[in-house]
Amino acid sequence: IESESAEAVLDKLEGLHPTDIAELMDELSMDEAKYLYLLLDPERASDVLVEIPENERRRFLRVLPPELIARQFIEYMDSDDAADVVGDLEDDMKEAVLQEMKDKEQAGDIADLLEYDEDSAGGLMAKELIKVNENWTVQTSLKEISAQAEHIDEIYYVYVVDDGGFLKGILSLTKLILNPTNSKIKTLLEDDLHYVKTDATQEEVAQLMERFDLVAIPVVDHIGRLKGRITIDDVVDVIREEAEKDYQMVSGITGDVESGDRVWNLTRARLPWLLIGLLGGILGARVLGANESALAQIQGIAFFIPLIAAMAGNVGVQSSSIVVQTIASGARDFDSIGKKLLKELAVGLITALVFSSLIFVYNFTFGDSLKLTWAVSISLFIVIVFASLFGTTIPLVLNKLKIDPALATGPFITTTNDILGLIMYMMVAKTFFDIV
Amino acid sequence: IESESAEAVLDKLEGLHPTDIAELMDELSMDEAKYLYLLLDPERASDVLVEIPENERRRFLRVLPPELIARQFIEYMDSDDAADVVGDLEDDMKEAVLQEMKDKEQAGDIADLLEYDEDSAGGLMAKELIKVNENWTVQTSLKEISAQAEHIDEIYYVYVVDDGGFLKGILSLTKLILNPTNSKIKTLLEDDLHYVKTDATQEEVAQLMERFDLVAIPVVDHIGRLKGRITIDDVVDVIREEAEKDYQMVSGITGDVESGDRVWNLTRARLPWLLIGLLGGILGARVLGANESALAQIQGIAFFIPLIAAMAGNVGVQSSSIVVQTIASGARDFDSIGKKLLKELAVGLITALVFSSLIFVYNFTFGDSLKLTWAVSISLFIVIVFASLFGTTIPLVLNKLKIDPALATGPFITTTNDILGLIMYMMVAKTFFDIV
Repeated sequence: IESESAEAVLDKLEGLHPTDIAELMDELSMDEAKYLYLLLDPERASDVLVEIPENERRRFLRVLPPELIARQFIEYMDSDDAADVVGDLEDDMKEAVLQEMKDKEQAGDIADLLEYDEDSAGGLMAKELIKVNENWTVQTSLKEISAQAEHIDEIYYVYVVDDGGFLKGILSLTKLILNPTNSKIKTLLEDDLHYVKTDATQEEVAQLMERFDLVAIPVVDHIGRLKGRITIDDVVDVIREEAEKDYQMVSGITGDVESGDRVWNLTRARLPWLLIGLLGGILGARVLGANESALAQIQGIAFFIPLIAAMAGNVGVQSSSIVVQTIASGARDFDSIGKKLLKELAVGLITALVFSSLIFVYNFTFGDSLKLTWAVSISLFIVIVFASLFGTTIPLVLNKLKIDPALATGPFITTTNDILGLIMYMMVAKTFFDIV
Repeated sequence: IESESAEAVLDKLEGLHPTDIAELMDELSMDEAKYLYLLLDPERASDVLVEIPENERRRFLRVLPPELIARQFIEYMDSDDAADVVGDLEDDMKEAVLQEMKDKEQAGDIADLLEYDEDSAGGLMAKELIKVNENWTVQTSLKEISAQAEHIDEIYYVYVVDDGGFLKGILSLTKLILNPTNSKIKTLLEDDLHYVKTDATQEEVAQLMERFDLVAIPVVDHIGRLKGRITIDDVVDVIREEAEKDYQMVSGITGDVESGDRVWNLTRARLPWLLIGLLGGILGARVLGANESALAQIQGIAFFIPLIAAMAGNVGVQSSSIVVQTIASGARDFDSIGKKLLKELAVGLITALVFSSLIFVYNFTFGDSLKLTWAVSISLFIVIVFASLFGTTIPLVLNKLKIDPALATGPFITTTNDILGLIMYMMVAKTFFDIV
């Protein structure tokens, strides 16, 4: 890249979307990336900056002076993106950047947004919105909207407030166009609207917008004053992130990694859960070590260790995933916890019956020892029922405790069930063969 | 519910959203559900019908006469929802319903939509849209928009076509309002726009809209004539579905189940992958059975079976999930397949080194046999490297073959890696202890 002239590089970037350029930046060295940024016009450079991953951005901004950050990047961003970027900076850098901004109103908006928790509705919202007073006429409103619309890419709804700034309703542009110019806004507004409070969680916002197919939702403070709006594109990102988080959890990856990432990032994302797997394996070895005499005396008992462990793990992951997915979808659930567990018990019993019968038939046909055949089937039965209930209970309990229930999927539940399964298998087998 | 009067029931349903009512319906018997439907006014009843799961809907519609379906439900729906519902009916029922419709234009639209594959852009789009001719003035356009807007809930963009119906550009309402009434549309339109062809897959549509933060996207046929539009709310559903599908795959569940579902559905969704787990367990038992002499002669060798199997499974799931997630995110990937595998090899080698060293230290400290200590560590090393490469390769190959790469996550990869891990462990151990 470096060998080409500035024009040639710019030419190549011309057709690319900011997201693509951001991904490309990720592959470059710091100096190359910096060079590229300064080549781009500020509008585009800020779009790219919004798209690059947080830690990369932080590293990059650390080497730039606050004036440059303020005037080259922040001033070209919408308030919500600007707040995200500024929020990532160190405290004194934050202040310096905000002070360097020429647009004092936007600096104020960003400072306001920084007050909110990043994962709340307040942290997601943008200050840019179109609002009209309920006492205005259509004509006045249209004029005001033209003035306000300069700073806004796209208008989805016009929000209606009273003199005190309290949200009274919404109005679609369609309605404004279709009504006589002297109608009062008050008579046109839709007051049966959805809104969220600034401290709603981003999951709540996403569920509400998804459920009611909203494109934008207004955000109000505790007494109902209009503070900002959240648009669907930010919510799509939230939905995607939430889904990815749950997916990563169940597959035992920490953090958002893709195969394009550096080797070290890829490795680091995998070590924590593998460590749990290793500890589980060591515990499993201890369980088996404690049953050394059974292993030595019962011929063939070791053969079914992988089967019991795998079934326990799989059943546990299935049960916990169903619970996690149900919670994540935010669907109203008419079942009580008791009913859920009873159902899961039924599912567990059926599943257990099916698979312990299958393995019974297999062992009865091909095995040598009837005692072992019984021991394996009975253990498998107990293990499956137990793993179902355990896999259902743990995420429900975590959710009650306000801990992310997805923690109880994947390697954690597999490992726990592996060990518990082994313990049960050994106990049942020893009972059958009268070994103490 | 049945014991209360119609008014009391309606009162209770008043505040609920169609999605909630749909979930409630799911809990009721057929007769109760039918009774409820006929209580609701048609507009609301159709909203509810759109929200209930496909198989429930099919069962329910089978008992109704075509006139009722046409006039009570279909005529109140947007063309895209109507096409989904009608598309689910049996062929002769489809025709009957379309013929019973009074609104012949809508019947025609639905018939058009039924031509497209359900998972394509054509299957996702709605026919309802606002379009203006490029030769009109702002004033004419506003008048036309008012007329067209009657059938449409919300306008996001106005599409501009030429006399032949070819898509020329888009126009935001904002722009229409802010410009003089005698301006020609031609001079105002934005012609650098995103669009999809009718045969684009729904994943492509979702990725495009997500990437460029679009609220609606126009759909054109192969020669560029405007055919319909897709709105973000349908795409949010696609994104959610795709994410759920991958999640279910990695957790070993087939089909879209939630803990609120019936016991039989919950059980059925879990049996297929557990069956694979069982077969894997039996194969594992065979592998161990074939190594009976090694198991009998090497004291303690059985203790580490769960450890080797668990690590192989976990590493494999992690590797395959990272690949699947990268493919699903649709991010441009600048790495070639060769580079990916080299990286994965590096990740595998580091991970393998870390964990085989850890287990070496553990066994060296607490174990009795130095030979077994070496055998376990070396096996674990080989197994981890192999599982990384295997977990990365399989989904890449499936993707090349146009098979959903997510198939290679979860129980499939765990089970395969379990067995291969056991084979390697036995081979290494026998080499160390000189057993043939």
